[in-house]
Amino acid sequence: MTYCVGMILKEGLIFASDSRTNAGVDHVATFRKMNVFSVPGERQIVLLNAGNLATTQSVVSLLKSRLQHAAQHLHSVGNMYEAAELVGQTIREVLARDANDSTLGQGVDYSCSFLVGGQIRGEPPRLFQLYPQGNFIEATPDTPYLQVGEAKYGKPILDRVIRDDTPLAQAIKCTLISFDSTIRSNLSVGLPLDLLWQLRDDFRFPPRHRVTEDDPYFLQLRQGWGEGLRSVFGQLPDALWFHEGDAAPD
Amino acid sequence: MTYCVGMILKEGLIFASDSRTNAGVDHVATFRKMNVFSVPGERQIVLLNAGNLATTQSVVSLLKSRLQHAAQHLHSVGNMYEAAELVGQTIREVLARDANDSTLGQGVDYSCSFLVGGQIRGEPPRLFQLYPQGNFIEATPDTPYLQVGEAKYGKPILDRVIRDDTPLAQAIKCTLISFDSTIRSNLSVGLPLDLLWQLRDDFRFPPRHRVTEDDPYFLQLRQGWGEGLRSVFGQLPDALWFHEGDAAPD
Repeated sequence: MTYCVGMILKEGLIFASDSRTNAGVDHVATFRKMNVFSVPGERQIVLLNAGNLATTQSVVSLLKSRLQHAAQHLHSVGNMYEAAELVGQTIREVLARDANDSTLGQGVDYSCSFLVGGQIRGEPPRLFQLYPQGNFIEATPDTPYLQVGEAKYGKPILDRVIRDDTPLAQAIKCTLISFDSTIRSNLSVGLPLDLLWQLRDDFRFPPRHRVTEDDPYFLQLRQGWGEGLRSVFGQLPDALWFHEGDAAPD
Repeated sequence: MTYCVGMILKEGLIFASDSRTNAGVDHVATFRKMNVFSVPGERQIVLLNAGNLATTQSVVSLLKSRLQHAAQHLHSVGNMYEAAELVGQTIREVLARDANDSTLGQGVDYSCSFLVGGQIRGEPPRLFQLYPQGNFIEATPDTPYLQVGEAKYGKPILDRVIRDDTPLAQAIKCTLISFDSTIRSNLSVGLPLDLLWQLRDDFRFPPRHRVTEDDPYFLQLRQGWGEGLRSVFGQLPDALWFHEGDAAPD
């Protein structure tokens, strides 16, 4: 499994992904699920991927190799919508090649999902989520974050905190807590995490941080959040209507 | 969708279910998903159900009607394991009747899940989760709670708080917070909630509480938890390695 989050905020974009892949519980490995297509000064495009590793690696490999000589590629598309369209086409191309043999493919899920976000000079930052079918939706100020992979465990904290105008520093903190909740509840999501933030209208290669097992900040958050939750929980009153000895009328 | 939780703790059992059902977003209704089979002084058996409403209603109707004249029923089984077995058989019976016509049934998911718990005099309380196939697992002190339906949003708080020796009053509080997180993140889980607790070796009809939209305790928890989370979040520091103006080396 996988967990990836992308956010589009007033200040800029955030991307985060875990790095665990597994084909069964006895075949667990670490793969980076974040790829950056960068033309400094002109465009920064970030891809996060979830789903079948053979499919997502092929999609990314094709997108990279075509930077050299294809008619259209991620360094040439005119805007982020076309970038999302191109990734969607590439997903369909790989699935058409790999997933159409019904005799070989029984029981294998070849599908994948992508988050594609970034900024190309001339338009504001944009963020898209690509479905396994290759079509896509775009994040808006009302729904400023998108998730792919194991999204549910980490969603409640995002729902409570993330708004369009949440400062980047707070949104990064919230993202890490969302990953902590997911990692605790689903073994197939694991450290290290890759985290990247991209300021609006900043076309330098975006800063990244890899969160490993012994990252002091992540450990501090994890402990502080756990203790804080238990403390809030402990301060809330017990149910007014709960009495140990009660029984309902027969 | 549905969310149901059952817990088996040192002090006793807790059962909770939401009441929203939907067949598409334009056909939403309220149905109780909790049923009690009670012989005061001798046994208290609680069923929570998730999944296809036609299937679960049929299973419960058959289990109830058979109390009168069947050879084996929930008021006659000798222990909770046999109770779980009987519910599993009844699931298979309903599916064999309703779900085997491949021409009519295309695209319809007839499956369901149940939590079956309680106590029959002569053995300690027990709690089972029945899969759509009718087989089942039993909760243990290591894993004292089981969920069916939309389980993921509300699982992180249970994982953090619930232990075998958590007092019932705290476990009820935690259960309601788990439902609050789920209701916030998934529209298809909704109030009112049905909550029931059953003290170990107490064979009176167990006390129940229905949590409605204007339940003062639920409102207080919801508000206190939300404010508490935001306060803990606000007190945690920003990332040591995050600086607004950063850019990675090209």
